[in-house]
Amino acid sequence: MENPPVTASPPPQATKAALVIGAGDATGGAIARRFAREGYIACVVRRTADKLQPLVERIRADGGQAHGFASDARKEEQVAALFAQIEAEVAPIEVVVFNIGANVRFGITETTERVYRKVWEMAALAGFLAGREAARVMRPRGRGTILFTGATASLRGSSGFCAFAGAKHALRALAQSMARELGPEGLHVAHIVIDGAIDTQFIAENFPGRYALKEREGILDPEAIAENYWQLHCQPRSAWTHELDLRPWIETW
Amino acid sequence: MENPPVTASPPPQATKAALVIGAGDATGGAIARRFAREGYIACVVRRTADKLQPLVERIRADGGQAHGFASDARKEEQVAALFAQIEAEVAPIEVVVFNIGANVRFGITETTERVYRKVWEMAALAGFLAGREAARVMRPRGRGTILFTGATASLRGSSGFCAFAGAKHALRALAQSMARELGPEGLHVAHIVIDGAIDTQFIAENFPGRYALKEREGILDPEAIAENYWQLHCQPRSAWTHELDLRPWIETW
Amino acid sequence: MENPPVTASPPPQATKAALVIGAGDATGGAIARRFAREGYIACVVRRTADKLQPLVERIRADGGQAHGFASDARKEEQVAALFAQIEAEVAPIEVVVFNIGANVRFGITETTERVYRKVWEMAALAGFLAGREAARVMRPRGRGTILFTGATASLRGSSGFCAFAGAKHALRALAQSMARELGPEGLHVAHIVIDGAIDTQFIAENFPGRYALKEREGILDPEAIAENYWQLHCQPRSAWTHELDLRPWIETW
Amino acid sequence: MENPPVTASPPPQATKAALVIGAGDATGGAIARRFAREGYIACVVRRTADKLQPLVERIRADGGQAHGFASDARKEEQVAALFAQIEAEVAPIEVVVFNIGANVRFGITETTERVYRKVWEMAALAGFLAGREAARVMRPRGRGTILFTGATASLRGSSGFCAFAGAKHALRALAQSMARELGPEGLHVAHIVIDGAIDTQFIAENFPGRYALKEREGILDPEAIAENYWQLHCQPRSAWTHELDLRPWIETW
Repeated sequence: MENPPVTASPPPQATKAALVIGAGDATGGAIARRFAREGYIACVVRRTADKLQPLVERIRADGGQAHGFASDARKEEQVAALFAQIEAEVAPIEVVVFNIGANVRFGITETTERVYRKVWEMAALAGFLAGREAARVMRPRGRGTILFTGATASLRGSSGFCAFAGAKHALRALAQSMARELGPEGLHVAHIVIDGAIDTQFIAENFPGRYALKEREGILDPEAIAENYWQLHCQPRSAWTHELDLRPWIETW
Repeated sequence: MENPPVTASPPPQATKAALVIGAGDATGGAIARRFAREGYIACVVRRTADKLQPLVERIRADGGQAHGFASDARKEEQVAALFAQIEAEVAPIEVVVFNIGANVRFGITETTERVYRKVWEMAALAGFLAGREAARVMRPRGRGTILFTGATASLRGSSGFCAFAGAKHALRALAQSMARELGPEGLHVAHIVIDGAIDTQFIAENFPGRYALKEREGILDPEAIAENYWQLHCQPRSAWTHELDLRPWIETW
Repeated sequence: MENPPVTASPPPQATKAALVIGAGDATGGAIARRFAREGYIACVVRRTADKLQPLVERIRADGGQAHGFASDARKEEQVAALFAQIEAEVAPIEVVVFNIGANVRFGITETTERVYRKVWEMAALAGFLAGREAARVMRPRGRGTILFTGATASLRGSSGFCAFAGAKHALRALAQSMARELGPEGLHVAHIVIDGAIDTQFIAENFPGRYALKEREGILDPEAIAENYWQLHCQPRSAWTHELDLRPWIETW
Repeated sequence: MENPPVTASPPPQATKAALVIGAGDATGGAIARRFAREGYIACVVRRTADKLQPLVERIRADGGQAHGFASDARKEEQVAALFAQIEAEVAPIEVVVFNIGANVRFGITETTERVYRKVWEMAALAGFLAGREAARVMRPRGRGTILFTGATASLRGSSGFCAFAGAKHALRALAQSMARELGPEGLHVAHIVIDGAIDTQFIAENFPGRYALKEREGILDPEAIAENYWQLHCQPRSAWTHELDLRPWIETW
């Protein structure tokens, strides 16, 4: 099987799936748990299966349903197969969250072609594949929510970020273009600009000074981020948000 | 007394006030009702008292608390007196919503100095006065939410909108500047860009074709707008939104 | 007479006037000289006449034509009279440059209503009056150039700049709205975002450290700024610029 | 030899090269001719050599110097070899213009992975390679101009343009990031947003109605575009433009 679920469970009845691509970090995990708490079957995806199991188990321990999928989001066939499998074996996909980041910093002359291409494949091409497959399954149903995670670099090309800002700008253009095309067909496409450090193990280990701000809520809490994704999904179609920003209260911007 | 409340009631204990300036239209009314539903004392303000009473009565009939105030939001002393009165007689102001619009359309050579000035006084100067007085009462407490209602014209100067877009751009600059100054002091300042027609009597009477879109949620529902104001207020300070847009699913943008 | 020219000269034949409102600083003066060098009659305007005479004399010494006008650009009648007088006594106005600044910095609670209003009157209302009168005289001729001087604050509401950014945002909205309305009538409306310190006596006296950057071209040269205004005016109508930014090479942005 | 020049000529003395990548269309050709007119040796590049010869010959007939190079701008080694060859055999590269477009329109579900990737490789990856190689040769000299051609899609993700807007947004992010990094090193990086149809054979053949606007300068004249590239290069470093837009006077925007 192309995309074997890491875990197995009987197909659901009258349920809906929330697919989170890039569920390896704190944010993706929190989003998956937030939707699972509301009864959605969380389908969580990473390139490798290893870190998915703890997330799946945590959701189940909280009384929710979850499945883990190992899939390379940059590969067209794998993404298509992932959607097909979930639709066939799990539930109709009601929500897709694309949450893969690729934050690297290199001066322009230190940026290799390989890095520039890889960052784009992870943060933009994979977003396109996820968004397109989402559109394919949702369009005939005339409903669905597609959420893209952005960053400061989505809006601004800072020094040293030609690769990351390029990919994030491209992802934002994708979100806008899809929103304009698919909104009138009933699909809600939104882009969330996360403008600040998130409470993750990575920040804790590499930026302890910054992490210390956590004590006074100075870095983004993944649970708080996830709440916004949930609220965006809940918006009635008479008043949809396409873009919102999120940053800690003390952040300079 | 400078700003006699339209209605009287005993001062509350351990409660908080939500002040809505520009509560004459559907949106301001819905926002006031939304906060009242959560236990806030809605303080609703219009230039003249006549249309306030029905809103106050509706909130009370729903079990909430409300006071109406007639005040000219363009007058520095009246705004200062309004804040002082509410703080003294009603409750600490926890939320301020500035919701005064002034949508007019004139070609550049048909725009009189009087119109250009008046639109700015209503939509920008009044916003500044409300925002400043809010900052004054909230800053010592290190908390509070200040929400400004924007429009399509906040982001774009379209033909025929030199006055309205000018005022709305100025209001957006105010919101940004205040957010950057007051965020690190614990005050949440946000700007909501409402990009589409709202379900109001004005639209019903003047744009019946457009209003017919209501049947399929093609115009903005004030209740849906109000929900977003409430959610913005609920955001924990680790993840604040400064700006979001709202538009109907079928809107072209 | 409402707007007596500070200096007198015989009416020109087959010539064109370039009107620079806000010609008291280095930038306005350089722009006036640049257009005069090309044969335009420079009509330079300030609130008070005192500093105009040296500019007028410098232009004449360089072989150009110039007239100085004392006029309060915030007063509708004075602006209308200014345009009428130049059209009647000097030459058809081919170019209007609005160059009045009002850069002040105050925290939100330290900003008085008087300051907020005055900054808007100088930087936005006066721009509207100049732009509207320009449109009135140029529209029947189907040609003309209207240039507005912007600033960093035109694009961003920084902390402490609620008044200045508000006025500059409003001016930018005006420029956009006018460009969209008047472009198809043959009038070129553009907005120049000056993002950095300019080589002026004010900077020399108040920010000597910054001024020292002049040695390596680290602050904006008014002559270089003026060249861009001239080039904008020279653009053929098949390829007009509406907005460009200008900043020194070493500027952080 | 990896990148054989289509034409040969003796190496120049004390001259500078202006490299135009994407010189197959009207715009690239006009830019090359504009710089050649000022004494720069125009180095014009296309994937295939066939259309370069007429441009090279036209420049020479006008008294200028030019060389044509066939090179695939998406290939790292070819781009590096191109820069090396010109620096070694022609002249120091003073100006680099990246002018490759890839305007395609497909709905999201009709966009193949191949198209999405190819458009990015042409319009963004190739821009990165050109920009990086330019930085490498210019940085040690502390001078040079790098110009990127943008489009409407650089600023807006319209329906049907997820691929093109994505690539153009990425290119704009690159230009911004490079400008911020390289400006303080003396390199001028700018981005020109071309917002309208250009007078090309393609428009003439495929959009005759639009092309008819040419009679009243309603489509962009490549010579007028080229003039702006030249003027950007001429800006003294005390007042550099990073971004400007260009559109015909009658264009709706």
